[in-house]
Amino acid sequence: MTEIIKVSYQGIAGAYSHLACLNYFGENVMCCASETFEDAMEMVEEGNVDYALIPIENKTAGRVDEFYGLLPNMKLQIVGEHYQKIEHCLLGVEGSSLDDIVYAYSHPQGLAQCRNGLNELGIKQVAQFDTAGSAREVAKLKDKSLCAIASSLAAKTYGLKILKENIQDQKDNFTRFIVLANRKEILIKSDRAYVTSMIFKVKNVSSALYKALGGFAKNDVNILKIESYIPLGKLEESHFHIDVDGSLESEFVKKSIDELKKYATKVKILGTYEKNTLRIEKNDS
Amino acid sequence: MTEIIKVSYQGIAGAYSHLACLNYFGENVMCCASETFEDAMEMVEEGNVDYALIPIENKTAGRVDEFYGLLPNMKLQIVGEHYQKIEHCLLGVEGSSLDDIVYAYSHPQGLAQCRNGLNELGIKQVAQFDTAGSAREVAKLKDKSLCAIASSLAAKTYGLKILKENIQDQKDNFTRFIVLANRKEILIKSDRAYVTSMIFKVKNVSSALYKALGGFAKNDVNILKIESYIPLGKLEESHFHIDVDGSLESEFVKKSIDELKKYATKVKILGTYEKNTLRIEKNDS
Repeated sequence: MTEIIKVSYQGIAGAYSHLACLNYFGENVMCCASETFEDAMEMVEEGNVDYALIPIENKTAGRVDEFYGLLPNMKLQIVGEHYQKIEHCLLGVEGSSLDDIVYAYSHPQGLAQCRNGLNELGIKQVAQFDTAGSAREVAKLKDKSLCAIASSLAAKTYGLKILKENIQDQKDNFTRFIVLANRKEILIKSDRAYVTSMIFKVKNVSSALYKALGGFAKNDVNILKIESYIPLGKLEESHFHIDVDGSLESEFVKKSIDELKKYATKVKILGTYEKNTLRIEKNDS
Repeated sequence: MTEIIKVSYQGIAGAYSHLACLNYFGENVMCCASETFEDAMEMVEEGNVDYALIPIENKTAGRVDEFYGLLPNMKLQIVGEHYQKIEHCLLGVEGSSLDDIVYAYSHPQGLAQCRNGLNELGIKQVAQFDTAGSAREVAKLKDKSLCAIASSLAAKTYGLKILKENIQDQKDNFTRFIVLANRKEILIKSDRAYVTSMIFKVKNVSSALYKALGGFAKNDVNILKIESYIPLGKLEESHFHIDVDGSLESEFVKKSIDELKKYATKVKILGTYEKNTLRIEKNDS
Protein backbone atom coordinates (compact mmCIF):
# COMPACT_ATOMS: atom_id res chain seq x y z
CA MET A 1 0.00 0.00 0.00
CA THR A 2 1.35 3.42 -0.92
CA GLU A 3 1.52 5.97 1.82
CA ILE A 4 -0.81 8.95 1.46
CA ILE A 5 0.84 12.35 1.96
CA LYS A 6 -1.39 14.97 3.58
CA VAL A 7 -0.91 18.60 2.53
CA SER A 8 -2.71 21.82 3.48
CA TYR A 9 -3.06 24.89 1.25
CA GLN A 10 -4.83 28.23 1.46
CA GLY A 11 -7.89 28.53 -0.75
CA ILE A 12 -10.64 26.25 -1.98
CA ALA A 13 -10.55 23.16 -4.22
CA GLY A 14 -9.34 24.00 -7.72
CA ALA A 15 -7.15 26.92 -6.57
CA TYR A 16 -3.66 27.29 -8.05
CA SER A 17 -2.32 26.32 -4.60
CA HIS A 18 -4.30 23.09 -4.88
CA LEU A 19 -2.84 22.48 -8.35
CA ALA A 20 0.64 23.17 -6.94
CA CYS A 21 0.10 20.49 -4.25
CA LEU A 22 -0.84 17.91 -6.90
CA ASN A 23 2.05 18.86 -9.18
CA TYR A 24 4.62 18.85 -6.40
CA PHE A 25 3.56 15.69 -4.54
CA GLY A 26 2.06 13.66 -7.39
CA GLU A 27 -0.81 11.18 -7.19
CA ASN A 28 -0.72 9.96 -3.62
CA VAL A 29 -1.56 13.22 -1.93
CA MET A 30 -4.57 14.27 0.11
CA CYS A 31 -5.03 18.04 -0.19
CA CYS A 32 -6.72 19.96 2.63
CA ALA A 33 -8.19 23.41 1.93
CA SER A 34 -7.63 26.11 4.59
CA GLU A 35 -9.08 29.60 4.89
CA THR A 36 -5.82 31.40 5.75
CA PHE A 37 -2.05 30.84 5.59
CA GLU A 38 -2.02 30.65 9.39
CA ASP A 39 -4.64 27.89 9.33
CA ALA A 40 -2.69 25.92 6.72
CA MET A 41 0.50 26.20 8.80
CA GLU A 42 -1.29 25.37 12.06
CA MET A 43 -2.52 22.11 10.53
CA VAL A 44 1.13 21.09 10.10
CA GLU A 45 2.13 22.28 13.57
CA GLU A 46 -0.68 20.24 15.12
CA GLY A 47 0.23 17.13 13.13
CA ASN A 48 -3.02 16.98 11.15
CA VAL A 49 -1.13 17.15 7.85
CA ASP A 50 2.48 16.49 6.83
CA TYR A 51 3.11 19.64 4.78
CA ALA A 52 1.75 23.07 3.88
CA LEU A 53 2.28 24.66 0.47
CA ILE A 54 2.43 28.46 0.64
CA PRO A 55 2.80 30.91 -2.30
CA ILE A 56 5.69 33.25 -1.55
CA GLU A 57 6.22 35.29 -4.68
CA ASN A 58 4.65 35.83 -8.05
CA LYS A 59 6.31 37.25 -11.12
CA THR A 60 3.47 39.56 -12.05
CA ALA A 61 1.82 40.14 -8.68
CA GLY A 62 4.87 40.36 -6.42
CA ARG A 63 5.78 39.17 -3.00
CA VAL A 64 3.13 37.60 -0.81
CA ASP A 65 3.82 39.77 2.22
CA GLU A 66 1.02 38.45 4.36
CA PHE A 67 3.31 35.47 4.84
CA TYR A 68 6.41 37.56 5.63
CA GLY A 69 4.72 38.76 8.80
CA LEU A 70 4.55 35.16 9.98
CA LEU A 71 8.22 34.30 9.33
CA PRO A 72 9.93 35.49 12.55
CA ASN A 73 7.76 33.28 14.77
CA MET A 74 7.31 30.39 12.37
CA LYS A 75 7.86 26.97 13.97
CA LEU A 76 8.00 25.10 10.63
CA GLN A 77 10.93 24.52 8.28
CA ILE A 78 11.07 25.12 4.55
CA VAL A 79 11.71 21.67 3.06
CA GLY A 80 11.08 22.35 -0.63
CA GLU A 81 10.19 24.89 -3.29
CA HIS A 82 7.92 24.65 -6.32
CA TYR A 83 7.37 26.97 -9.27
CA GLN A 84 3.78 26.70 -10.42
CA LYS A 85 3.04 27.96 -13.91
CA ILE A 86 -0.10 30.09 -13.86
CA GLU A 87 -2.19 29.29 -16.92
CA HIS A 88 -5.61 30.87 -16.76
CA CYS A 89 -8.48 29.24 -18.65
CA LEU A 90 -11.89 30.60 -19.63
CA LEU A 91 -14.37 28.15 -18.09
CA GLY A 92 -18.03 27.97 -19.09
CA VAL A 93 -20.99 25.73 -18.28
CA GLU A 94 -21.86 22.69 -20.39
CA GLY A 95 -23.32 23.73 -23.74
CA SER A 96 -21.84 27.25 -23.70
CA SER A 97 -19.46 28.59 -26.33
CA LEU A 98 -17.15 31.62 -26.48
CA ASP A 99 -19.78 33.57 -28.43
CA ASP A 100 -22.28 33.26 -25.55
CA ILE A 101 -19.98 34.79 -22.94
CA VAL A 102 -20.77 38.30 -21.69
CA TYR A 103 -19.21 38.28 -18.19
CA ALA A 104 -16.00 36.82 -16.77
CA TYR A 105 -15.83 36.09 -13.02
CA SER A 106 -12.48 35.98 -11.23
CA HIS A 107 -10.20 37.48 -8.58
CA PRO A 108 -9.29 41.09 -9.57
CA GLN A 109 -5.68 39.97 -10.12
CA GLY A 110 -6.75 37.10 -12.38
CA LEU A 111 -8.92 39.53 -14.36
CA ALA A 112 -6.09 42.08 -14.57
CA GLN A 113 -3.74 39.38 -15.86
CA CYS A 114 -6.18 38.67 -18.72
CA ARG A 115 -7.24 42.30 -19.38
CA ASN A 116 -6.18 42.52 -23.05
CA GLY A 117 -7.56 39.09 -23.96
CA LEU A 118 -10.93 39.86 -22.34
CA ASN A 119 -11.14 43.26 -24.02
CA GLU A 120 -10.51 41.68 -27.40
CA LEU A 121 -13.31 39.20 -26.79
CA GLY A 122 -15.58 42.02 -25.55
CA ILE A 123 -16.10 40.24 -22.21
CA LYS A 124 -16.98 42.33 -19.14
CA GLN A 125 -15.20 41.68 -15.84
CA VAL A 126 -16.86 40.78 -12.53
CA ALA A 127 -14.70 40.57 -9.39
CA GLN A 128 -14.83 37.53 -7.13
CA PHE A 129 -12.90 36.37 -4.05
CA ASP A 130 -10.66 33.91 -5.83
CA THR A 131 -10.23 32.12 -9.14
CA ALA A 132 -11.53 28.74 -7.97
CA GLY A 133 -14.47 30.35 -6.17
CA SER A 134 -15.49 32.05 -9.40
CA ALA A 135 -15.55 28.65 -11.13
CA ARG A 136 -17.72 27.26 -8.34
CA GLU A 137 -20.07 30.26 -8.70
CA VAL A 138 -20.38 29.92 -12.49
CA ALA A 139 -21.12 26.19 -12.09
CA LYS A 140 -23.80 27.02 -9.51
CA LEU A 141 -25.48 29.72 -11.62
CA LYS A 142 -25.59 27.49 -14.76
CA ASP A 143 -25.75 30.61 -16.98
CA LYS A 144 -24.29 30.34 -20.50
CA SER A 145 -23.39 34.04 -20.59
CA LEU A 146 -20.94 33.61 -17.69
CA CYS A 147 -17.43 32.26 -17.58
CA ALA A 148 -14.78 31.98 -14.86
CA ILE A 149 -11.08 32.68 -15.18
CA ALA A 150 -9.39 29.88 -13.26
CA SER A 151 -7.14 26.82 -13.52
CA SER A 152 -7.89 23.71 -15.57
CA LEU A 153 -8.13 21.93 -12.21
CA ALA A 154 -11.04 24.23 -11.30
CA ALA A 155 -12.77 23.12 -14.52
CA LYS A 156 -12.41 19.49 -13.48
CA THR A 157 -13.40 20.23 -9.86
CA TYR A 158 -16.63 22.07 -10.68
CA GLY A 159 -17.60 20.30 -13.93
CA LEU A 160 -16.98 23.24 -16.24
CA LYS A 161 -15.84 23.23 -19.85
CA ILE A 162 -12.59 24.90 -20.94
CA LEU A 163 -13.61 27.43 -23.61
CA LYS A 164 -10.13 28.87 -24.06
CA GLU A 165 -6.76 27.93 -22.56
CA ASN A 166 -3.77 30.04 -21.57
CA ILE A 167 -5.57 33.36 -21.91
CA GLN A 168 -3.35 35.52 -19.64
CA ASP A 169 -1.63 38.44 -21.40
CA GLN A 170 1.79 37.57 -19.94
CA LYS A 171 2.36 33.96 -21.02
CA ASP A 172 5.36 33.29 -18.80
CA ASN A 173 3.90 33.70 -15.31
CA PHE A 174 5.00 31.59 -12.33
CA THR A 175 4.18 31.56 -8.65
CA ARG A 176 6.88 30.31 -6.33
CA PHE A 177 5.62 28.09 -3.51
CA ILE A 178 7.52 26.90 -0.48
CA VAL A 179 6.84 23.56 1.17
CA LEU A 180 6.70 23.70 4.99
CA ALA A 181 7.03 20.81 7.40
CA ASN A 182 7.50 20.19 11.09
CA ARG A 183 10.90 18.51 10.94
CA LYS A 184 14.44 19.69 11.00
CA GLU A 185 16.44 16.75 9.65
CA ILE A 186 16.96 16.57 5.90
CA LEU A 187 18.80 13.94 3.91
CA ILE A 188 21.34 15.72 1.70
CA LYS A 189 22.21 13.83 -1.50
CA SER A 190 25.56 14.70 -3.03
CA ASP A 191 24.25 14.74 -6.61
CA ARG A 192 21.53 17.32 -5.95
CA ALA A 193 21.53 21.12 -5.73
CA TYR A 194 20.20 22.77 -2.57
CA VAL A 195 19.03 26.18 -1.39
CA THR A 196 19.22 27.56 2.16
CA SER A 197 16.84 30.33 3.23
CA MET A 198 17.31 32.61 6.21
CA ILE A 199 16.15 35.88 7.72
CA PHE A 200 18.19 38.30 9.83
CA LYS A 201 18.34 41.85 11.10
CA VAL A 202 21.27 44.25 10.96
CA LYS A 203 21.62 47.31 13.16
CA ASN A 204 23.44 49.79 10.92
CA VAL A 205 22.12 48.96 7.49
CA SER A 206 24.91 50.41 5.34
CA SER A 207 28.18 48.78 6.31
CA ALA A 208 26.69 46.09 8.56
CA LEU A 209 24.66 44.66 5.66
CA TYR A 210 27.80 44.75 3.55
CA LYS A 211 29.82 43.02 6.25
CA ALA A 212 27.03 40.53 6.91
CA LEU A 213 27.16 39.50 3.24
CA GLY A 214 30.96 39.33 3.29
CA GLY A 215 31.06 35.73 4.47
CA PHE A 216 29.03 34.60 1.48
CA ALA A 217 31.32 36.46 -0.95
CA LYS A 218 34.49 35.15 0.73
CA ASN A 219 33.19 31.56 0.65
CA ASP A 220 31.87 31.90 -2.90
CA VAL A 221 28.30 31.16 -1.86
CA ASN A 222 25.83 32.55 -4.43
CA ILE A 223 23.05 34.77 -3.17
CA LEU A 224 19.98 33.77 -5.18
CA LYS A 225 17.61 36.30 -3.67
CA ILE A 226 17.81 39.21 -1.23
CA GLU A 227 14.98 41.28 0.13
CA SER A 228 14.62 43.82 2.89
CA TYR A 229 11.24 43.77 4.54
CA ILE A 230 9.47 45.46 7.40
CA PRO A 231 7.80 43.08 9.86
CA LEU A 232 4.09 43.70 10.52
CA GLY A 233 3.51 46.51 12.97
CA LYS A 234 7.20 47.45 13.19
CA LEU A 235 7.92 50.35 10.83
CA GLU A 236 11.18 51.06 12.67
CA GLU A 237 12.82 47.67 11.99
CA SER A 238 14.38 46.45 8.75
CA HIS A 239 14.86 42.75 8.26
CA PHE A 240 16.42 40.80 5.41
CA HIS A 241 15.50 37.56 3.74
CA ILE A 242 18.11 35.79 1.64
CA ASP A 243 18.24 32.54 -0.30
CA VAL A 244 21.70 31.14 -0.99
CA ASP A 245 23.09 28.29 -3.04
CA GLY A 246 24.04 25.18 -1.07
CA SER A 247 22.84 23.15 1.90
CA LEU A 248 23.48 23.63 5.61
CA GLU A 249 25.87 20.66 5.41
CA SER A 250 28.18 22.63 3.12
CA GLU A 251 31.26 23.94 4.96
CA PHE A 252 31.07 27.12 2.85
CA VAL A 253 27.48 27.83 3.81
CA LYS A 254 28.25 27.08 7.48
CA LYS A 255 31.23 29.46 7.48
CA SER A 256 29.20 32.17 5.73
CA ILE A 257 26.48 31.92 8.36
CA ASP A 258 29.06 32.09 11.17
CA GLU A 259 30.35 35.31 9.60
CA LEU A 260 26.79 36.61 9.14
CA LYS A 261 26.13 36.12 12.86
CA LYS A 262 28.96 38.52 13.73
CA TYR A 263 27.13 41.42 12.07
CA ALA A 264 23.48 40.40 12.21
CA THR A 265 21.05 39.63 15.01
CA LYS A 266 18.01 37.36 14.98
CA VAL A 267 19.55 35.07 12.35
CA LYS A 268 16.92 32.41 11.71
CA ILE A 269 17.51 29.55 9.29
CA LEU A 270 14.20 28.87 7.56
CA GLY A 271 15.36 25.68 5.91
CA THR A 272 17.61 23.81 3.50
CA TYR A 273 15.86 22.22 0.55
CA GLU A 274 16.35 20.85 -2.92
CA LYS A 275 16.65 23.51 -5.58
CA ASN A 276 13.84 23.61 -8.11
CA THR A 277 14.94 22.62 -11.61
CA LEU A 278 13.65 25.95 -12.97
CA ARG A 279 16.22 27.74 -10.85
CA ILE A 280 18.93 25.32 -11.92
CA GLU A 281 18.15 25.99 -15.58
CA LYS A 282 18.13 29.69 -14.84
CA ASN A 283 21.61 29.53 -13.30
CA ASP A 284 23.04 27.37 -16.03
CA SER A 285 21.87 29.69 -18.78
CA MET B 1 -4.06 82.90 -8.79
CA THR B 2 -2.67 79.66 -7.40
CA GLU B 3 -1.36 77.19 -9.90
CA ILE B 4 -3.31 73.94 -10.18
CA ILE B 5 -1.17 70.78 -10.08
CA LYS B 6 -2.45 67.92 -12.24
CA VAL B 7 -1.84 64.36 -11.01
CA SER B 8 -2.82 60.98 -12.40
CA TYR B 9 -3.44 57.84 -10.31
CA GLN B 10 -4.61 54.30 -10.99
CA GLY B 11 -8.15 53.59 -9.83
CA ILE B 12 -11.44 55.46 -9.57
CA ALA B 13 -12.43 58.51 -7.49
CA GLY B 14 -12.25 57.76 -3.77
CA ALA B 15 -9.47 55.16 -4.12
CA TYR B 16 -6.59 55.22 -1.62
CA SER B 17 -4.39 56.41 -4.51
CA HIS B 18 -6.75 59.37 -4.93
CA LEU B 19 -6.54 60.08 -1.20
CA ALA B 20 -2.74 59.87 -1.43
CA CYS B 21 -2.75 62.52 -4.22
CA LEU B 22 -4.78 64.91 -2.05
CA ASN B 23 -2.65 64.28 1.04
CA TYR B 24 0.63 64.68 -0.80
CA PHE B 25 -0.19 67.71 -2.98
CA GLY B 26 -2.76 69.48 -0.78
CA GLU B 27 -5.70 71.57 -1.90
CA ASN B 28 -4.66 72.87 -5.32
CA VAL B 29 -4.54 69.55 -7.09
CA MET B 30 -6.61 68.17 -9.95
CA CYS B 31 -6.64 64.35 -9.72
CA CYS B 32 -7.11 62.29 -12.88
CA ALA B 33 -8.26 58.67 -12.58
CA SER B 34 -6.56 56.11 -14.88
CA GLU B 35 -7.38 52.49 -15.54
CA THR B 36 -3.82 51.11 -15.30
CA PHE B 37 -0.38 52.15 -13.98
CA GLU B 38 0.81 52.41 -17.59
CA ASP B 39 -2.03 54.82 -18.42
CA ALA B 40 -1.28 56.97 -15.37
CA MET B 41 2.41 57.14 -16.35
CA GLU B 42 1.63 57.79 -20.01
CA MET B 43 -0.41 60.84 -19.03
CA VAL B 44 2.76 62.32 -17.50
CA GLU B 45 4.93 61.33 -20.48
CA GLU B 46 2.50 63.03 -22.86
CA GLY B 47 2.33 66.17 -20.76
CA ASN B 48 -1.35 65.87 -19.90
CA VAL B 49 -0.59 65.88 -16.18
CA ASP B 50 2.41 66.99 -14.08
CA TYR B 51 2.77 63.90 -11.88
CA ALA B 52 1.67 60.31 -11.38
CA LEU B 53 1.32 58.74 -7.93
CA ILE B 54 2.00 55.00 -7.96
CA PRO B 55 1.76 52.56 -5.00
CA ILE B 56 5.01 50.64 -4.76
CA GLU B 57 4.79 48.62 -1.55
CA ASN B 58 2.34 47.83 1.16
CA LYS B 59 3.15 46.60 4.63
CA THR B 60 0.49 43.91 4.72
CA ALA B 61 0.05 43.15 1.02
CA GLY B 62 3.65 43.36 -0.19
CA ARG B 63 5.42 44.74 -3.16
CA VAL B 64 3.38 46.00 -6.12
CA ASP B 65 5.27 44.00 -8.72
CA GLU B 66 3.13 44.98 -11.67
CA PHE B 67 5.03 48.24 -11.49
CA TYR B 68 8.47 46.58 -11.22
CA GLY B 69 8.05 45.23 -14.71
CA LEU B 70 7.77 48.81 -15.99
CA LEU B 71 10.92 50.12 -14.27
CA PRO B 72 13.68 49.23 -16.78
CA ASN B 73 12.03 51.17 -19.62
CA MET B 74 10.49 53.94 -17.54
CA LYS B 75 11.06 57.42 -18.96
CA LEU B 76 9.92 59.23 -15.79
CA GLN B 77 11.87 60.16 -12.67
CA ILE B 78 10.91 59.50 -9.07
CA VAL B 79 10.61 62.98 -7.52
CA GLY B 80 8.96 62.14 -4.21
CA GLU B 81 7.62 59.47 -1.89
CA HIS B 82 4.52 59.36 0.27
CA TYR B 83 3.39 56.94 2.96
CA GLN B 84 -0.40 56.72 2.94
CA LYS B 85 -2.00 55.32 6.06
CA ILE B 86 -4.68 52.80 5.07
CA GLU B 87 -7.70 53.26 7.33
CA HIS B 88 -10.66 51.26 6.15
CA CYS B 89 -14.17 52.48 7.01
CA LEU B 90 -17.50 50.67 6.92
CA LEU B 91 -19.69 52.79 4.64
CA GLY B 92 -23.47 52.49 4.46
CA VAL B 93 -26.28 54.33 2.69
CA GLU B 94 -28.16 57.18 4.37
CA GLY B 95 -30.43 55.90 7.12
CA SER B 96 -28.57 52.61 7.62
CA SER B 97 -26.97 51.53 10.89
CA LEU B 98 -24.43 48.83 11.82
CA ASP B 99 -27.27 46.52 12.89
CA ASP B 100 -28.76 46.56 9.38
CA ILE B 101 -25.59 45.40 7.64
CA VAL B 102 -25.50 41.83 6.29
CA TYR B 103 -22.94 42.10 3.45
CA ALA B 104 -19.66 44.01 3.06
CA TYR B 105 -18.46 44.83 -0.47
CA SER B 106 -14.74 45.40 -1.15
CA HIS B 107 -11.58 44.26 -2.90
CA PRO B 108 -10.55 40.80 -1.61
CA GLN B 109 -7.47 42.35 0.02
CA GLY B 110 -9.56 45.01 1.78
CA LEU B 111 -11.91 42.29 3.03
CA ALA B 112 -8.97 40.13 4.15
CA GLN B 113 -7.50 43.09 6.06
CA CYS B 114 -10.79 43.40 8.01
CA ARG B 115 -11.51 39.68 8.38
CA ASN B 116 -11.62 39.51 12.21
CA GLY B 117 -13.65 42.71 12.55
CA LEU B 118 -16.23 41.56 9.99
CA ASN B 119 -16.50 38.12 11.59
CA GLU B 120 -17.15 39.71 14.99
CA LEU B 121 -19.95 41.81 13.48
CA GLY B 122 -21.34 38.74 11.65
CA ILE B 123 -21.01 40.50 8.28
CA LYS B 124 -20.60 38.38 5.14
CA GLN B 125 -17.98 39.32 2.53
CA VAL B 126 -18.65 40.06 -1.15
CA ALA B 127 -15.66 40.58 -3.47
CA GLN B 128 -15.47 43.63 -5.72
CA PHE B 129 -12.85 45.10 -8.06
CA ASP B 130 -11.62 47.80 -5.73
CA THR B 131 -12.48 49.57 -2.51
CA ALA B 132 -13.80 52.78 -4.10
CA GLY B 133 -15.78 50.83 -6.70
CA SER B 134 -17.52 48.95 -3.90
CA ALA B 135 -18.57 52.29 -2.35
CA ARG B 136 -19.94 53.44 -5.71
CA GLU B 137 -21.86 50.15 -6.03
CA VAL B 138 -23.38 50.36 -2.53
CA ALA B 139 -24.44 53.98 -3.22
CA LYS B 140 -26.04 52.86 -6.48
CA LEU B 141 -27.93 49.91 -4.94
CA LYS B 142 -29.27 52.04 -2.02
CA ASP B 143 -29.72 48.91 0.10
CA LYS B 144 -29.47 49.29 3.90
CA SER B 145 -28.18 45.74 4.33
CA LEU B 146 -25.04 46.53 2.32
CA CYS B 147 -21.86 48.34 3.28
CA ALA B 148 -18.58 49.01 1.51
CA ILE B 149 -15.08 48.79 2.98
CA ALA B 150 -13.26 51.82 1.62
CA SER B 151 -11.63 55.14 2.50
CA SER B 152 -13.37 58.09 4.15
CA LEU B 153 -12.79 59.89 0.82
CA ALA B 154 -14.95 57.24 -0.89
CA ALA B 155 -17.73 58.05 1.62
CA LYS B 156 -17.53 61.72 0.65
CA THR B 157 -17.24 60.93 -3.07
CA TYR B 158 -20.31 58.67 -3.25
CA GLY B 159 -22.44 60.24 -0.51
CA LEU B 160 -22.19 57.36 1.94
CA LYS B 161 -22.25 57.44 5.72
CA ILE B 162 -19.31 56.21 7.81
CA LEU B 163 -20.77 53.51 10.09
CA LYS B 164 -17.43 52.52 11.64
CA GLU B 165 -13.92 53.92 11.24
CA ASN B 166 -10.54 52.23 11.27
CA ILE B 167 -11.90 48.70 11.11
CA GLN B 168 -8.83 46.91 9.69
CA ASP B 169 -7.37 44.21 11.98
CA GLN B 170 -3.81 45.53 11.63
CA LYS B 171 -4.08 49.16 12.74
CA ASP B 172 -0.65 50.25 11.55
CA ASN B 173 -0.89 49.72 7.78
CA PHE B 174 0.79 51.99 5.26
CA THR B 175 1.16 51.96 1.49
CA ARG B 176 4.26 53.60 0.10
CA PHE B 177 3.67 55.69 -3.02
CA ILE B 178 6.25 57.19 -5.34
CA VAL B 179 5.69 60.43 -7.20
CA LEU B 180 6.75 60.34 -10.86
CA ALA B 181 7.46 63.32 -13.13
CA ASN B 182 8.95 64.05 -16.51
CA ARG B 183 11.89 66.16 -15.35
CA LYS B 184 15.41 65.44 -14.25
CA GLU B 185 16.52 68.59 -12.42
CA ILE B 186 15.80 68.75 -8.72
CA LEU B 187 16.55 71.57 -6.32
CA ILE B 188 18.47 70.08 -3.40
CA LYS B 189 18.05 71.99 -0.14
CA SER B 190 20.83 71.55 2.38
CA ASP B 191 18.51 71.29 5.38
CA ARG B 192 16.47 68.39 3.98
CA ALA B 193 17.06 64.62 3.86
CA TYR B 194 17.00 62.87 0.48
CA VAL B 195 16.71 59.36 -0.91
CA THR B 196 18.17 58.09 -4.20
CA SER B 197 16.61 55.05 -5.89
CA MET B 198 18.29 52.91 -8.53
CA ILE B 199 18.09 49.55 -10.24
CA PHE B 200 20.97 47.46 -11.56
CA LYS B 201 21.98 43.99 -12.63
CA VAL B 202 25.03 42.00 -11.53
CA LYS B 203 26.47 39.10 -13.46
CA ASN B 204 27.81 36.80 -10.74
CA VAL B 205 25.40 37.35 -7.89
CA SER B 206 27.56 36.23 -4.95
CA SER B 207 30.69 38.34 -4.87
CA ALA B 208 29.63 40.87 -7.51
CA LEU B 209 26.61 41.93 -5.44
CA TYR B 210 28.91 42.20 -2.44
CA LYS B 211 31.44 44.24 -4.41
CA ALA B 212 28.69 46.35 -5.97
CA LEU B 213 27.53 47.31 -2.47
CA GLY B 214 31.10 47.97 -1.34
CA GLY B 215 31.09 51.58 -2.51
CA PHE B 216 28.10 52.37 -0.33
CA ALA B 217 29.75 50.78 2.72
CA LYS B 218 33.07 52.54 2.10
CA ASN B 219 31.35 55.92 1.67
CA ASP B 220 29.07 55.34 4.63
CA VAL B 221 25.91 55.62 2.53
CA ASN B 222 23.00 53.88 4.25
CA ILE B 223 21.06 51.32 2.22
CA LEU B 224 17.41 51.89 3.14
CA LYS B 225 15.98 49.09 1.04
CA ILE B 226 17.32 46.29 -1.14
CA GLU B 227 15.35 43.90 -3.27
CA SER B 228 16.20 41.39 -5.94
CA TYR B 229 13.52 41.03 -8.56
CA ILE B 230 12.94 39.18 -11.79
CA PRO B 231 11.83 41.39 -14.69
CA LEU B 232 8.66 40.32 -16.48
CA GLY B 233 9.23 37.52 -18.93
CA LYS B 234 12.88 37.04 -17.96
CA LEU B 235 13.21 34.23 -15.46
CA GLU B 236 16.93 33.95 -16.16
CA GLU B 237 17.84 37.51 -15.07
CA SER B 238 18.13 38.86 -11.53
CA HIS B 239 17.94 42.61 -11.00
CA PHE B 240 18.26 44.66 -7.85
CA HIS B 241 16.45 47.72 -6.62
CA ILE B 242 18.04 49.77 -3.86
CA ASP B 243 17.12 52.97 -2.05
CA VAL B 244 19.99 54.79 -0.35
CA ASP B 245 20.30 57.78 1.97
CA GLY B 246 21.38 61.02 0.30
CA SER B 247 20.92 62.93 -2.94
CA LEU B 248 22.74 62.62 -6.24
CA GLU B 249 24.54 65.85 -5.37
CA SER B 250 26.26 64.16 -2.43
CA GLU B 251 29.89 63.28 -3.18
CA PHE B 252 29.48 60.09 -1.17
CA VAL B 253 26.49 58.92 -3.18
CA LYS B 254 28.27 59.81 -6.44
CA LYS B 255 31.39 57.87 -5.47
CA SER B 256 29.27 54.87 -4.37
CA ILE B 257 27.49 54.81 -7.73
CA ASP B 258 30.82 55.03 -9.59
CA GLU B 259 31.96 52.00 -7.63
CA LEU B 260 28.65 50.24 -8.28
CA LYS B 261 29.12 50.69 -12.01
CA LYS B 262 32.37 48.71 -11.91
CA TYR B 263 30.51 45.57 -10.83
CA ALA B 264 26.98 46.10 -12.14
CA THR B 265 25.45 46.62 -15.56
CA LYS B 266 22.28 48.46 -16.53
CA VAL B 267 22.61 50.89 -13.60
CA LYS B 268 19.59 53.16 -13.88
CA ILE B 269 19.03 56.04 -11.47
CA LEU B 270 15.27 56.23 -10.87
CA GLY B 271 15.46 59.53 -9.01
CA THR B 272 16.59 61.62 -6.06
CA TYR B 273 13.80 62.92 -3.84
CA GLU B 274 13.02 64.27 -0.43
CA LYS B 275 12.82 61.62 2.26
CA ASN B 276 9.41 61.12 3.77
CA THR B 277 9.22 62.17 7.42
CA LEU B 278 8.01 58.70 8.40
CA ARG B 279 11.33 57.28 7.20
CA ILE B 280 13.22 60.01 9.03
CA GLU B 281 11.42 59.18 12.26
CA LYS B 282 12.14 55.53 11.65
CA ASN B 283 15.86 56.18 11.29
CA ASP B 284 16.05 58.46 14.27
CA SER B 285 14.40 56.00 16.61
